[in-house]
Amino acid sequence: MKIETLHDLFIAELRDLYHAEKQLTKALPKMAKATNSSELRTAIEEHLEETRHQVERLEQVFERMGMAARAKKCEAMKGLIEEGQELLEEDMAPEVSDAGIIAAAQKVEHYEIASYGTLCTWAEQLGQNEALELLKQTLQEEKAADEKLTQLAEAGVNQAAMA
Amino acid sequence: MKIETLHDLFIAELRDLYHAEKQLTKALPKMAKATNSSELRTAIEEHLEETRHQVERLEQVFERMGMAARAKKCEAMKGLIEEGQELLEEDMAPEVSDAGIIAAAQKVEHYEIASYGTLCTWAEQLGQNEALELLKQTLQEEKAADEKLTQLAEAGVNQAAMA
Repeated sequence: MKIETLHDLFIAELRDLYHAEKQLTKALPKMAKATNSSELRTAIEEHLEETRHQVERLEQVFERMGMAARAKKCEAMKGLIEEGQELLEEDMAPEVSDAGIIAAAQKVEHYEIASYGTLCTWAEQLGQNEALELLKQTLQEEKAADEKLTQLAEAGVNQAAMA
Repeated sequence: MKIETLHDLFIAELRDLYHAEKQLTKALPKMAKATNSSELRTAIEEHLEETRHQVERLEQVFERMGMAARAKKCEAMKGLIEEGQELLEEDMAPEVSDAGIIAAAQKVEHYEIASYGTLCTWAEQLGQNEALELLKQTLQEEKAADEKLTQLAEAGVNQAAMA
């Protein structure tokens, strides 16, 4: 696909994020399984459900734009997930491992916050109001997921990691 | 290096970020060169200078922790930079290219915001106050750089991309 206009760039970014979210639905169950704190496991499992809805929401955005949903390999998310997996292979104490899982998950959330933020700005400028509403919902969910992880980190998981 | 405690995890994350920042000092000049808006070019060049100081600041953090500064390959930043470079190879109109450069740069900023945020939380819990002060300074700079890019995107670069 040739990228010439902001509309083309918007579609390219949408395809990148569609691939990223789909990769994430495969990676999150492994992260959840590796957790030691039940609170952290629940948070990741809930976000997995949310992520599945976000994939569907992206499909709706493609539909609103009159395009078929197509993914384009997202190198950044691939790197982020690889980094998280490397960490899980380390021989850490359970609480330290949980602190590391939170850190990896927050990097993923921030990637998505940046991507959805960009897509919202572009949707607004392109006058794609239906797409904008859908993208805004996901952006809010990603920010909330990031905050939830910060709370978990500060509230106890890291305290346990020092014991 | 075996990761067993939160202190070990802190050092591992520090090494990852040290590699990430160093990769970035090589990638930012290419991004700056590819810009079309002089305002965007200035913003990226200024952030390059800031990034060089952030590398030095990380070296100071290693020093405060009584460790030699050592990098560990950061797969995530590698992916982020690759993604940005792929974009620069596209045959875009100048204004569209600038909108894409901003998007790529904001993803990088968000990676760093997540990483420094995590390091600040851990430094506080480990009672590493000198390290915390240094890391906080960089976290603020990364947040400011992200906001500056949002302003540039909203103020005009994207408007031009639609023309």
